[in-house]
Amino acid sequence: MRLILPALILLFPGLAAAAAAPSPAEIVAQAPNADWSDVAPERLLVMKLADGGRVVIELAPEFAPVHVANVVRLARSHQWDGGAVTRVQDNYVVQWRVHDEASPLPEGFMARPPAEYERPLKGLDYTPLPYPDPYATESGIASGWLVGREGAQIWPAQCYGVVGVGRDMPPDTGDGRELYVVNGEAPRQLDRNLAVVGRVLQGMEHLSALPRGTGKLGFHTDPRQDVPIASMTLAADLPAALRPAMQVMRTDSQSFHDYLAARAARRDPFFVHPAGGVSLCNVPVPSREKKTKHD
Amino acid sequence: MRLILPALILLFPGLAAAAAAPSPAEIVAQAPNADWSDVAPERLLVMKLADGGRVVIELAPEFAPVHVANVVRLARSHQWDGGAVTRVQDNYVVQWRVHDEASPLPEGFMARPPAEYERPLKGLDYTPLPYPDPYATESGIASGWLVGREGAQIWPAQCYGVVGVGRDMPPDTGDGRELYVVNGEAPRQLDRNLAVVGRVLQGMEHLSALPRGTGKLGFHTDPRQDVPIASMTLAADLPAALRPAMQVMRTDSQSFHDYLAARAARRDPFFVHPAGGVSLCNVPVPSREKKTKHD
Repeated sequence: MRLILPALILLFPGLAAAAAAPSPAEIVAQAPNADWSDVAPERLLVMKLADGGRVVIELAPEFAPVHVANVVRLARSHQWDGGAVTRVQDNYVVQWRVHDEASPLPEGFMARPPAEYERPLKGLDYTPLPYPDPYATESGIASGWLVGREGAQIWPAQCYGVVGVGRDMPPDTGDGRELYVVNGEAPRQLDRNLAVVGRVLQGMEHLSALPRGTGKLGFHTDPRQDVPIASMTLAADLPAALRPAMQVMRTDSQSFHDYLAARAARRDPFFVHPAGGVSLCNVPVPSREKKTKHD
Repeated sequence: MRLILPALILLFPGLAAAAAAPSPAEIVAQAPNADWSDVAPERLLVMKLADGGRVVIELAPEFAPVHVANVVRLARSHQWDGGAVTRVQDNYVVQWRVHDEASPLPEGFMARPPAEYERPLKGLDYTPLPYPDPYATESGIASGWLVGREGAQIWPAQCYGVVGVGRDMPPDTGDGRELYVVNGEAPRQLDRNLAVVGRVLQGMEHLSALPRGTGKLGFHTDPRQDVPIASMTLAADLPAALRPAMQVMRTDSQSFHDYLAARAARRDPFFVHPAGGVSLCNVPVPSREKKTKHD
C-alpha cells in the first residue's frame, strides 16, 4: 500500500488534499500564536465551585454593559461567594445565584437595567456566515461573538456555553444576581429575550455534568441539592499568578477561516459526506489557556 | 386590575389571545390522548445502568434496518448486559459498548452492515419544516422523525438524544456493538455519516449528567471510570408489567402543529421577541410514559 498510494495521488492529485485535510480540532491545535488574542483579566470571571471545579467566563460588555457591570460589582463585593447552583435542567440551562438576595446592593448597582437584548451592528467588526439561519435574517461573527442580525441590529446567539441573566416576567430584565449557562441544544428562542453577559471559555464540564434537578424546570426541590459556589471573582482582582491566561482565536485570522470552512465541510478522513453548511452555534470560537512557565 | 383587564380585552381582543397563548410545554401537557400513539414494545430498548438509572430508547428500523436488527440481536443474546459507558465527551456524545467485543456474534448478526446513512423519502409520510436549515436543502418530519432532505433522499438528523452507531474509518459502518447518544448542540455534521438507530425517549439525564471523560475525545483513561450497564433489553422481551408504556406525539396531530408553531414563535408571557423560526433539532417530538393503573 505504501508504494501504491503515491501513484494514486499522482493520478488523482485531489486525493492528496483529501487524505491530508485537517479536522477543525487539528486546525485549532496548529494555529500559530499570532492567530490568538489574550483576553484581558478585566473581561474574565473565575468561578470556583466548593468542590474545587473552576469555570472561566469571558464577559461581553459590548452587548450588555449594565448587566455586566452589575455582575462585576457583585463579584467585587463578594456576593457570589457562598452562592449556589439551584437549577440544572437537562438540555437547557444550569442556573446559579448570589449568596443572599437580601444582601445590600453594592454601590453603583443598577436595580433595573435596561433590556440589553440587542444592539446596533455599528461599532463592531462584523462578518456574515454564508449559511441560512432559521432564527435570524443572517448570522455572523461580531468582534469575536456569534450573533444573529436583522437590519442594523445584532444580538448574541444563545449557544452552548453562553451565560445570560435570569429574569422574571417582562418588563423585568433581571439584575445579574441570577445567571444561567446554556447546557444543550442552543435555545435560540431566547435570542433577544434575555441579556447575554458572557460565555464559558473553560471548565464547562463542572456545570454541564451536574445531576439534573428533579423539580419543575430542573430546579432543586431541596436546598441540600444546591451546588455551593466558593467564589466568583474578576480575574483582574486575583493575584497575577492565579489569573487564567485565556486566549480566544482571532476571528479575522486565517486559522479561524480554515476552522469555519472545515466545520462546514468536513474533509478529514472520518467523513464520507461533508455537509456543505454549518449552524452558527456549531462554530464556537476556539479558546485556550496560554501555556506559561509555570505549566 | 381585575376590573380593568376585561375592558382592555374588549378594546383590544388580541390581548386575550396574547395573554392566554400557551407555551410548548403547556400544549404538550394538554394534548388529548388521541394525539399520542403507543410505541410498540418491539421498537423499544430498555437500558438499565448498574446504578439503577433507566434509559428508554425508541428504535428506528425505518432508517437503519440492518444496524437496528444487529442491536436487537445483541440484546436478545444479552451482550449488552455487563457492557459499559466508556466515553463521555462534553457537548458531543456519550458512548457505550457490549460486555465483550470478543464474544461470539449472535445468529443472523451482520458483521458488515451497509452504510444505512440515508434512505428514499418514498414510503414515509413527510412534512417539510418551513424554516431554512444550514445542513440540508430542506428539513422536515418523516413518519415522526426529524430529518434532512436532499432531492428524493432523507436522513435522520443527529439531534440531542439521537442514538447512533459508532464506527471506525470508512468504509467501516460499525456493526452496532458500540452506540452513542448526542448530548449537546446537535452535531449535524454527522448527518449522513453514521447510522442512526433510535432516540432516547426517557432517562436521558442518566447519560447526559455523567462526569466527562478526561481522555482524548472524552474517552475514559482507566476502565475503573467506565459506567457499568446492567442490561439492555427489548421491551417486548420483558414481562408485560416491566415494559415502559411509552407514547410519542402524532406529528400529524393538531397538538403537534400547535407545538411546532409555538416553538417557532413563543407568545407565552415570558417572551418579548418571538423568533419567527426554529431549527429542526429544537422541535423534538414529544414523548411521555402513559399512565397506567399501577402508577
